[in-house]
Amino acid sequence: MTFDFFTTIDILGTLAFAISGTSAAMHKRLDIFGIIIIAFITSVGGGTLRDILIGNTPVGWLKNTTIIHTILLGTFVTLVFGTYVKRMNYTLFLFDAMGLGLATIIGVQKGQDMHFVPGVCIALGTVTGCFGGVIRDTLLNDIPLVFRKEIYASICVLGGACYYLLTYFNIDNVVAQLISMALIVISRIIVVKYGLSLPSLYGKQ
Amino acid sequence: MTFDFFTTIDILGTLAFAISGTSAAMHKRLDIFGIIIIAFITSVGGGTLRDILIGNTPVGWLKNTTIIHTILLGTFVTLVFGTYVKRMNYTLFLFDAMGLGLATIIGVQKGQDMHFVPGVCIALGTVTGCFGGVIRDTLLNDIPLVFRKEIYASICVLGGACYYLLTYFNIDNVVAQLISMALIVISRIIVVKYGLSLPSLYGKQ
Amino acid sequence: MTFDFFTTIDILGTLAFAISGTSAAMHKRLDIFGIIIIAFITSVGGGTLRDILIGNTPVGWLKNTTIIHTILLGTFVTLVFGTYVKRMNYTLFLFDAMGLGLATIIGVQKGQDMHFVPGVCIALGTVTGCFGGVIRDTLLNDIPLVFRKEIYASICVLGGACYYLLTYFNIDNVVAQLISMALIVISRIIVVKYGLSLPSLYGKQ
Repeated sequence: MTFDFFTTIDILGTLAFAISGTSAAMHKRLDIFGIIIIAFITSVGGGTLRDILIGNTPVGWLKNTTIIHTILLGTFVTLVFGTYVKRMNYTLFLFDAMGLGLATIIGVQKGQDMHFVPGVCIALGTVTGCFGGVIRDTLLNDIPLVFRKEIYASICVLGGACYYLLTYFNIDNVVAQLISMALIVISRIIVVKYGLSLPSLYGKQ
Repeated sequence: MTFDFFTTIDILGTLAFAISGTSAAMHKRLDIFGIIIIAFITSVGGGTLRDILIGNTPVGWLKNTTIIHTILLGTFVTLVFGTYVKRMNYTLFLFDAMGLGLATIIGVQKGQDMHFVPGVCIALGTVTGCFGGVIRDTLLNDIPLVFRKEIYASICVLGGACYYLLTYFNIDNVVAQLISMALIVISRIIVVKYGLSLPSLYGKQ
Repeated sequence: MTFDFFTTIDILGTLAFAISGTSAAMHKRLDIFGIIIIAFITSVGGGTLRDILIGNTPVGWLKNTTIIHTILLGTFVTLVFGTYVKRMNYTLFLFDAMGLGLATIIGVQKGQDMHFVPGVCIALGTVTGCFGGVIRDTLLNDIPLVFRKEIYASICVLGGACYYLLTYFNIDNVVAQLISMALIVISRIIVVKYGLSLPSLYGKQ
């Protein structure tokens, strides 16, 4: 039951990441091959970088056909039903927020498994959640969006820290995951609803 | 004999990749150091990324002095005999196509060795063949060419799938390699001769 | 004593790298999160890439809290005392040059430990010294500075070759490190003082 719940979140989150990657790649007028690559990188890039940094190779998605099929499905659906997919904007936003939450928690867990200090565990959670988008934006020749707007990454830090603390105080793991994920989803909703951004600090220098 | 044949292809392909990398870097007005780096990345970047993803480290070229010398030779020749090298355009194109074919097959083989599913094996072949160029273009601040034009990557997918199928049906390995490589070279010739591109799909969204 | 000396250099160099990364990120108007990421990448990106290439994972800084705290300190100081930090321009330049020297030597040593050929050892030294800046510039959507100007990378090659030769002829390791580091620092001072660059070679093609 618990397993099913988190697997479902993983699939929905991956789907949302793949759809957002496909949209970004179409916007840059890539061909079908480029679109598929960008969809993959958006979906699994963060976890891939994390696995490479900690030496957990071969990286996970190479052996996870469920994720591969989900990404291809997301790409296909966006290519064929682009207009309809866009109308589901808010649903996709929620899937994306849930996927971000789960990715962050998985990243923190991998750090805990390797007995890194808290800051590094939370950083690995943030890498897992955000760096797919960073690599996508870099390949598409933009400065990564999460470096500039929407407090996307700061929410990973917040949720990751929450999860780390809860497990540190021996809260049940499933409960800790649910609370942290809820914190990330709710924070994302608040940030997007009120159009918040971190200050860019330029001009101070 | 067979060994010699594939080693020769490997060297000629690496030479073509190094020359194309050097040309791209000169075009962007890099200094000599930047040119050498870009030549290396164009030549070995794809195999390096594949090795990192599957955990096959230290990555191969660190211990392959033949490849290192070939890349330095390609860079040197292009720097000194630039005009003459350009006149050999068609020869270089053929070397490049053969190198692409061999790189793709090696990538598929590495995937087969690790018992990945067919799609992942073919993806690793494509990464090996194409991602040197992807990293080169990203460092030179362009959107990667293979994401946009010339069906370069799709031919890797085609050739990789051909090789996978042939070995799946127990065709002799050398025969399978030769057929797949020929398919890639001939496809490249046809694509470039008729100026074909995949549709960019933009506007549909 | 020797240990303390090199640890001090490492911290001062990391501090200089973090400050230069923070400045570059502020210049691009990133938010606080983007600035911290860029500071980290500038400081540890080169060593991280080297460790990934040679399979030395988990990469070193994940377990080095001293370095992590130094980077955060450098970022904080630059954000808060930006104007004052800028006045220390020459001091920071010297720290940066020393950090570059130490990074280069550590990279060469890692290559020697793995019995790579001399050219590869020196290349790993150069990767360690320079690729933090390369990744930083790529993420910030610029063509990497070291590919174009200031002979930064060539000095790594020079210093790395010097260190390799000295250890090859059984010079005491600490002496070899000090001589190579001095060569790198003095070369950087000369290059910056006289505004030297490598020729860009464009137009020859």
